[in-house]
Amino acid sequence: MNKAEVTEMILAKKKQTGITWASMAEAIGMSEVFTTSACLGMNSMPRDKADKLATHLGLPQEAGPVLAEFPTKMFEQSIPTDPCIYRLYEIVGVYGQTLKELIQEKGGDGIMSAIDFEMYVEKIPDPKGDRIEIKMSGKFLPYKNW
Amino acid sequence: MNKAEVTEMILAKKKQTGITWASMAEAIGMSEVFTTSACLGMNSMPRDKADKLATHLGLPQEAGPVLAEFPTKMFEQSIPTDPCIYRLYEIVGVYGQTLKELIQEKGGDGIMSAIDFEMYVEKIPDPKGDRIEIKMSGKFLPYKNW
Amino acid sequence: MNKAEVTEMILAKKKQTGITWASMAEAIGMSEVFTTSACLGMNSMPRDKADKLATHLGLPQEAGPVLAEFPTKMFEQSIPTDPCIYRLYEIVGVYGQTLKELIQEKGGDGIMSAIDFEMYVEKIPDPKGDRIEIKMSGKFLPYKNW
Amino acid sequence: MNKAEVTEMILAKKKQTGITWASMAEAIGMSEVFTTSACLGMNSMPRDKADKLATHLGLPQEAGPVLAEFPTKMFEQSIPTDPCIYRLYEIVGVYGQTLKELIQEKGGDGIMSAIDFEMYVEKIPDPKGDRIEIKMSGKFLPYKNW
Amino acid sequence: MNKAEVTEMILAKKKQTGITWASMAEAIGMSEVFTTSACLGMNSMPRDKADKLATHLGLPQEAGPVLAEFPTKMFEQSIPTDPCIYRLYEIVGVYGQTLKELIQEKGGDGIMSAIDFEMYVEKIPDPKGDRIEIKMSGKFLPYKNW
Amino acid sequence: MNKAEVTEMILAKKKQTGITWASMAEAIGMSEVFTTSACLGMNSMPRDKADKLATHLGLPQEAGPVLAEFPTKMFEQSIPTDPCIYRLYEIVGVYGQTLKELIQEKGGDGIMSAIDFEMYVEKIPDPKGDRIEIKMSGKFLPYKNW
Amino acid sequence: MNKAEVTEMILAKKKQTGITWASMAEAIGMSEVFTTSACLGMNSMPRDKADKLATHLGLPQEAGPVLAEFPTKMFEQSIPTDPCIYRLYEIVGVYGQTLKELIQEKGGDGIMSAIDFEMYVEKIPDPKGDRIEIKMSGKFLPYKNW
Amino acid sequence: MNKAEVTEMILAKKKQTGITWASMAEAIGMSEVFTTSACLGMNSMPRDKADKLATHLGLPQEAGPVLAEFPTKMFEQSIPTDPCIYRLYEIVGVYGQTLKELIQEKGGDGIMSAIDFEMYVEKIPDPKGDRIEIKMSGKFLPYKNW
Amino acid sequence: MNKAEVTEMILAKKKQTGITWASMAEAIGMSEVFTTSACLGMNSMPRDKADKLATHLGLPQEAGPVLAEFPTKMFEQSIPTDPCIYRLYEIVGVYGQTLKELIQEKGGDGIMSAIDFEMYVEKIPDPKGDRIEIKMSGKFLPYKNW
Amino acid sequence: MNKAEVTEMILAKKKQTGITWASMAEAIGMSEVFTTSACLGMNSMPRDKADKLATHLGLPQEAGPVLAEFPTKMFEQSIPTDPCIYRLYEIVGVYGQTLKELIQEKGGDGIMSAIDFEMYVEKIPDPKGDRIEIKMSGKFLPYKNW
Repeated sequence: MNKAEVTEMILAKKKQTGITWASMAEAIGMSEVFTTSACLGMNSMPRDKADKLATHLGLPQEAGPVLAEFPTKMFEQSIPTDPCIYRLYEIVGVYGQTLKELIQEKGGDGIMSAIDFEMYVEKIPDPKGDRIEIKMSGKFLPYKNW
Repeated sequence: MNKAEVTEMILAKKKQTGITWASMAEAIGMSEVFTTSACLGMNSMPRDKADKLATHLGLPQEAGPVLAEFPTKMFEQSIPTDPCIYRLYEIVGVYGQTLKELIQEKGGDGIMSAIDFEMYVEKIPDPKGDRIEIKMSGKFLPYKNW
Repeated sequence: MNKAEVTEMILAKKKQTGITWASMAEAIGMSEVFTTSACLGMNSMPRDKADKLATHLGLPQEAGPVLAEFPTKMFEQSIPTDPCIYRLYEIVGVYGQTLKELIQEKGGDGIMSAIDFEMYVEKIPDPKGDRIEIKMSGKFLPYKNW
Repeated sequence: MNKAEVTEMILAKKKQTGITWASMAEAIGMSEVFTTSACLGMNSMPRDKADKLATHLGLPQEAGPVLAEFPTKMFEQSIPTDPCIYRLYEIVGVYGQTLKELIQEKGGDGIMSAIDFEMYVEKIPDPKGDRIEIKMSGKFLPYKNW
Repeated sequence: MNKAEVTEMILAKKKQTGITWASMAEAIGMSEVFTTSACLGMNSMPRDKADKLATHLGLPQEAGPVLAEFPTKMFEQSIPTDPCIYRLYEIVGVYGQTLKELIQEKGGDGIMSAIDFEMYVEKIPDPKGDRIEIKMSGKFLPYKNW
Repeated sequence: MNKAEVTEMILAKKKQTGITWASMAEAIGMSEVFTTSACLGMNSMPRDKADKLATHLGLPQEAGPVLAEFPTKMFEQSIPTDPCIYRLYEIVGVYGQTLKELIQEKGGDGIMSAIDFEMYVEKIPDPKGDRIEIKMSGKFLPYKNW
Repeated sequence: MNKAEVTEMILAKKKQTGITWASMAEAIGMSEVFTTSACLGMNSMPRDKADKLATHLGLPQEAGPVLAEFPTKMFEQSIPTDPCIYRLYEIVGVYGQTLKELIQEKGGDGIMSAIDFEMYVEKIPDPKGDRIEIKMSGKFLPYKNW
Repeated sequence: MNKAEVTEMILAKKKQTGITWASMAEAIGMSEVFTTSACLGMNSMPRDKADKLATHLGLPQEAGPVLAEFPTKMFEQSIPTDPCIYRLYEIVGVYGQTLKELIQEKGGDGIMSAIDFEMYVEKIPDPKGDRIEIKMSGKFLPYKNW
Repeated sequence: MNKAEVTEMILAKKKQTGITWASMAEAIGMSEVFTTSACLGMNSMPRDKADKLATHLGLPQEAGPVLAEFPTKMFEQSIPTDPCIYRLYEIVGVYGQTLKELIQEKGGDGIMSAIDFEMYVEKIPDPKGDRIEIKMSGKFLPYKNW
Repeated sequence: MNKAEVTEMILAKKKQTGITWASMAEAIGMSEVFTTSACLGMNSMPRDKADKLATHLGLPQEAGPVLAEFPTKMFEQSIPTDPCIYRLYEIVGVYGQTLKELIQEKGGDGIMSAIDFEMYVEKIPDPKGDRIEIKMSGKFLPYKNW
């Protein structure tokens, strides 16, 4: 059993039972974004969380250790085609240099870590049309010199 | 005079005078991210803001209309090399499918707009190492069917 | 059962029975373009339309929910090879900048949405050779500034 | 003097005088899309139209023949980055196979020509948000067999 | 049964029986190039020719309609590796601009159609080494202006 | 003075004087295709032809040796964007495997040379629309085994 | 049975029996390079050599005709990753222009054929470290002009 | 003065004086291939050879040290377009795996060095058409294990 | 049985038994990096080490010779997506030119071999956060001139 | 004055005076690798070090602040062509997965930082041929979960 097979099992359960990512996240006490990304094979859950999720969804027992394995993260294409994901890529293209300028104006020469990192996503009702809010928080890492 | 030339002038003034993006944004009453992105040629400022900024920085008078022109947004490379910008690209690669799942779980089949969109960036002091926080808000657009 | 399998079933039925996209669209009261694109896995039908189509074509019952699932849109290649599709790509290449100029001359800095969007295609008889007419209508989205 | 230089001259005049593509098209009795695309160097105007436009805009006399020269059409990138042009590219990606199905259902094995082709673009006021309408008409060319 | 499967069947018959493309073309009264390209899945035969070929080769009856289906033409790679096909690609690279100059010198701004198109190939005995002759004939399509 | 500069001179003369490729070819007793390709820097003329052409067009004397230099053939892009040249590329994509089958059916395992090669192009009047005819003749080279 | 399957059979025999490429080449009286490349599916053997090899290795009888089929040569990637093959690619990159200069200094405008071509490889003992020697011989083909 | 400028000077001298690569190589007592590649900026000559060549060609005195500088080797494109260089690339594509098999059959797991490497090229007269011979010799490097 | 199958077996054993790369390396008396890379199919083990490892892990007997086979090294993508591997790629991008300058300042025009090469990796405890140390040692190969 | 111009100045001084990277590094009390990479525009020096280096080399006074500016790191090509740099790239390709396995076996799911990172390079004399040693040390960053 590997990560791709566990992802497939979870997606099948999800379609069958109508269970949401939000409720899975709640059941194991982790955030929605992290839970979803681990179920999609892009992160490794702590073993106890992984076992809890496997039990919660009625997956075979071996699924737990697999969810806890360290993934090799592979993204399918350098330029995503799905419109929902492309818009995020476009934001990096249009605002990447801007974010670099502002991060470095605030913190000096360095980066925002994508490893020591967390992210949240919410839908905010709005009379002019609902909005999606994404919040990211990453550790600032200054370039070391030596 | 074109957008690239105005960007160059602004960057030169910035190096000379030490003025920050934050203070430019404050001087014209717009957000840091939008102000920076317009100065880098990736967005068009309303004409009055553009003129105000030109005056504030002591740029030639023609710079105002140029800052108000509609840009053709070009990003240099499909995969960014600068480590600060690459980390953002990596986030889209690692978490893109996750965000799509959660946006669509919350709002149905649709996307977060990158056009009717705003973004903020802050440095948050933290004893274990300062953090960068980025907040995005984009209109949710459901796919139309017809 | 996934979207690719349902597409395959529909294409098989279509070859067997000679049913057209036009008649499928009529049977469920949706447009030809949208109906075809949803059958090819590029859009999600509302559940009731999806079930109606499944019944109309004599597909297994599970096909309905699958047609209603939100797709991850993947296009095979950045430059299409089929001559019929390439011509459309070429139009974007040759006239893309022109359309941008005219859309923005008419509406200001902004875009035509490809999400809040509809499209129709007709063949128009013409003594000098029949013509194909394509009509697109997309919401104009002005760039927000903040 | 080459096509790129004439394009630059026209864009400079346009910025200086505020003249629109619409009025240039009207002055020479051609469509907006074709006029704009020829000014951007992507099509060749008939010589008399070209001379009329040069006079109308006060360009040097040599500009006429240059506008009438046959261009080598080069598009900058296989995947456009400007969001306004990208949306058009995305439409081809998402709906290309659909258009092929429908064009060929209506006309048999063949294509819509991008050469014997015309296109119009309008902004349509709409209380729920204005819309952009694009109409294309291309000759249907059946594949010859021999 | 799909086009790829029919191609495979024809190639298998060809290896078994030693029948040539030339004799298949003769048997159905079509040209060698068109017959071969349709057997390889790159063109659609008229239904009666397709049925005749299926019978001639002793293929199952369903092969006829499949040969008559409209193909989605996909070429494997942008730059072909097989030396025999690469040489053709090289000719387009080395002589493409030349052909454009001469086609447009003779016919005005326009193209040679690859749809309303036919092609023949022969081996011509020559004491200094045999030669291959390829003849192409495509309709001249002038760019429309409007 | 290099090949690119001589090409530019010839194109300028051509625009000024209206001289055609056909008449240049006739003046030096070579074919249109070869003459044009050498003027565009893709082939080397024999020295006497090169000098004759330089004199005929009134180019500076050094242009002769430059036209006789051996070029390094570079084509701008792997997939051509100009529609006139793209159609040729498409023909190779759609019919490449077909031509390979037929060339090798007629001559055994081998290729048509693109070096020991000649090509002609004509416009053929036709009441249903004029046609372009291209004829290629290349030496057949069998693969050596050893 | 196709060329890939025969290659697999030969490689399996080779692993089982420890037979070398050198001895296979000797058994059929052909060169090592050609024999190996034909076994790997990149060349076609004369039918009698192919049958002899099939018998020599104890392959099924159909393997002979398959080894004699004309291959479609496909190389996996434009830039090879295996270090042993990459070094050869690097030699072409570093010395390609040099070889062109020298070939054309010696023979005039033309190329070394890769079709009418043979190649040998040897290991030469050397006290400072053994060396590999590769010898290529290809027919010189002058560019034809016409 | 940099390597590209020195290359340009040498090529200009060569055109002016008709001096050959062969005679330059002889004048400084090095091989043709190495001399040419160093003049084209792909290798560094020993300082004394470099000075001798500069004197021999009547280049300015600074050219010597520049020819002796260590180059950063950049090749223009991953797939060469010039037919003379492409044929070499094709040989690597078609025979790369074959050479790897034979090199490793003779020497064990390892490679032929492209650094501790030499190469010669000759034209060999032949009544059936002259031939080009290329000989390469590179040190065999076994993979170290540790 | 091929290298990919043996890799799969080893990874399965590793998951089942919890055995580490470090202990495998120790059991056969080779370094961790080399052992791991050979198990992943990127290097060939000496036959005795390979057999010892197969026995140690309880793999079928044929696994030994397979581990000793010479691999064809293929890396999946030119730009790695996994963040852990990307960071290494980024180091080459950011510091590649720097390393070249320093290697050649110290050793003259040449390279560090990746074949006659060894590498070690350690985790070093550090109160400010543990560190990873990688040490590489490769033979210096000076460019030969001839 | 920008970073590229300062790099050019430093390289010119270096050629003129023969000063080494090693002595520059020593003069300002920083490591060779960091000093070189900052001089090549890939890192930012602390302001005092930058000024010291500018004085040490006799550069104009504005060079100091430029060396202290935060760079946008751009690497020229995704696959490096220079053999010295390519070998490093190859090491990442061949050993990347191996390093990931070992880093994560030692530290859990995480990466070695390329930001909080230092590197040293030395030439080690060796009777069997000198060796290059590279040592890297980067902070281990565990993936956060939340």
